[in-house]
Amino acid sequence: MPAFADRLATAVREKDSCLVVGLDPFLDRLPLQILEAAGETDDPRANAALAIERFNAGVIEAVAPFAAAVKPQVAFYEMFGPAGIAAYERTLGLAHDAGLLVIGDIKRGDIGSTASAYARAHLDPMPGVPAADAVTVNPYLGRDSIAPFLEAAGKRDAGVFVLVRTSNPSAVELQELSGHGRPLYEDVAALVDEWGRDLVGESGFSSVGAVVGATAPEALMRLRSLMPKTWFLIPGVGAQGGAARDVAPAFAHNGLGALVNSSRGILYAYGDPATSAWQDAVANAAKTLRDELREAAAHAPA
Amino acid sequence: MPAFADRLATAVREKDSCLVVGLDPFLDRLPLQILEAAGETDDPRANAALAIERFNAGVIEAVAPFAAAVKPQVAFYEMFGPAGIAAYERTLGLAHDAGLLVIGDIKRGDIGSTASAYARAHLDPMPGVPAADAVTVNPYLGRDSIAPFLEAAGKRDAGVFVLVRTSNPSAVELQELSGHGRPLYEDVAALVDEWGRDLVGESGFSSVGAVVGATAPEALMRLRSLMPKTWFLIPGVGAQGGAARDVAPAFAHNGLGALVNSSRGILYAYGDPATSAWQDAVANAAKTLRDELREAAAHAPA
Repeated sequence: MPAFADRLATAVREKDSCLVVGLDPFLDRLPLQILEAAGETDDPRANAALAIERFNAGVIEAVAPFAAAVKPQVAFYEMFGPAGIAAYERTLGLAHDAGLLVIGDIKRGDIGSTASAYARAHLDPMPGVPAADAVTVNPYLGRDSIAPFLEAAGKRDAGVFVLVRTSNPSAVELQELSGHGRPLYEDVAALVDEWGRDLVGESGFSSVGAVVGATAPEALMRLRSLMPKTWFLIPGVGAQGGAARDVAPAFAHNGLGALVNSSRGILYAYGDPATSAWQDAVANAAKTLRDELREAAAHAPA
Repeated sequence: MPAFADRLATAVREKDSCLVVGLDPFLDRLPLQILEAAGETDDPRANAALAIERFNAGVIEAVAPFAAAVKPQVAFYEMFGPAGIAAYERTLGLAHDAGLLVIGDIKRGDIGSTASAYARAHLDPMPGVPAADAVTVNPYLGRDSIAPFLEAAGKRDAGVFVLVRTSNPSAVELQELSGHGRPLYEDVAALVDEWGRDLVGESGFSSVGAVVGATAPEALMRLRSLMPKTWFLIPGVGAQGGAARDVAPAFAHNGLGALVNSSRGILYAYGDPATSAWQDAVANAAKTLRDELREAAAHAPA
């Protein structure tokens, strides 16, 4: 199998889309027809998990023509215990069946032996268990906590996106603390560039990517120069306030190197949970954002 | 129910023990009699989960007289998918039945709505679902990522331990980056002190604690001064190389304020998996470390 970075490049080129759809299921916003069809057992967590899985199946079908990947946020599955995790795993399978790459948004970060357990859980599980193509990780514990993921990524042609600069308001508290003349997140960016060197594929990109918020376009430019071979995973477009045009500086060249995630803006585009045409609304929202992002990519630096 | 910080103070006083036993089950180190009794179904993950649960039941029985709390590391359960998470939940129940507090070592950290989902999953689940008394969290995303846990802690009298300075070798890469004249982790310590102010209990300690590695005793002293009302959760004694006497500066007063975790040094104290007397070995290792820690607490600053 080609390296993750190369599979991603192929997917983005073939679909002419850098869109990633976040699968963050909020139970109280799901279409009523999905909720009504669930709720059949005495176990509320199992009912919730079934509703989520059915919703995801519909979303995946609707967005597959327009997105390069989906990004399930594992917290929304973990909330429903074992049944939720089973729904998460089945979602990975559904996405793969639809030809979509999957970025598991897990943001794990722990010391060596524990990080190995997380890497096995999510990138290198037992045979027959669905695995994500890539996961997100937290850098606060340094290289020890990333190395097991890099190893699993090498072994399974998977990818790792390291949190660099997140898009939430309080990201500044730690990430912008200034050390030797630059904010902390630029130090993290330099580490990400270094960690990714052994995993650069034929596309010229590394399978070690970076999570970079879209809320500070000037920072994107600086980060692109610090991480020239890195796929950027950019949340924060849509519900978090970023606009598609702001991401132009994130692209590396040829319209590659940036992935833009939208979750709620696409998932709940139907607004009224009572509508039966919810899949059309989801598909239209994905198509619209894909088109805006094509425009942004066209304005990327040459 | 009293605040987590106060329940912890009571447990530590009543048992005269600041020992926390980490429940990090490595399948290939479990006693053979446990492994032989599992492995009954066609699903290797379910078999593993059953073995882990039975091992934990034996460990909990063995260490309950000597430990204030147990700390299951969720990665080792997550590795076995839905069945593993079910074993994690049942482990919480077993520990509570044995009168032990439970610190779920989850190290989650994500933006607001996602952090809320994690907080619900682990501290404030649906009725009837076992919950940890406290969890560990990662501060890299700042206050937004901690606030939902603080809220759940307030609502459910639970606790939150924020990673401040971890004990792994590469912790220095980010945590010791120097900003305005002090390492990053001291900035985090100041935030933890601030985040914990609204959750100070009658014991004088806050339900917002800090994870602080035992490998730098001089740093412990400095951190204690920055976080005077904070419970310290100290990993790294035993397999990670710290010695019980090094933790003395972590105690606040009256021998309170520090919890010391040991995982592998206690769990696998029997050495040979073929032994049938494994529970005795586990109990003895817990008792020995408890005694060493009593000695350390007696040498704490007055």
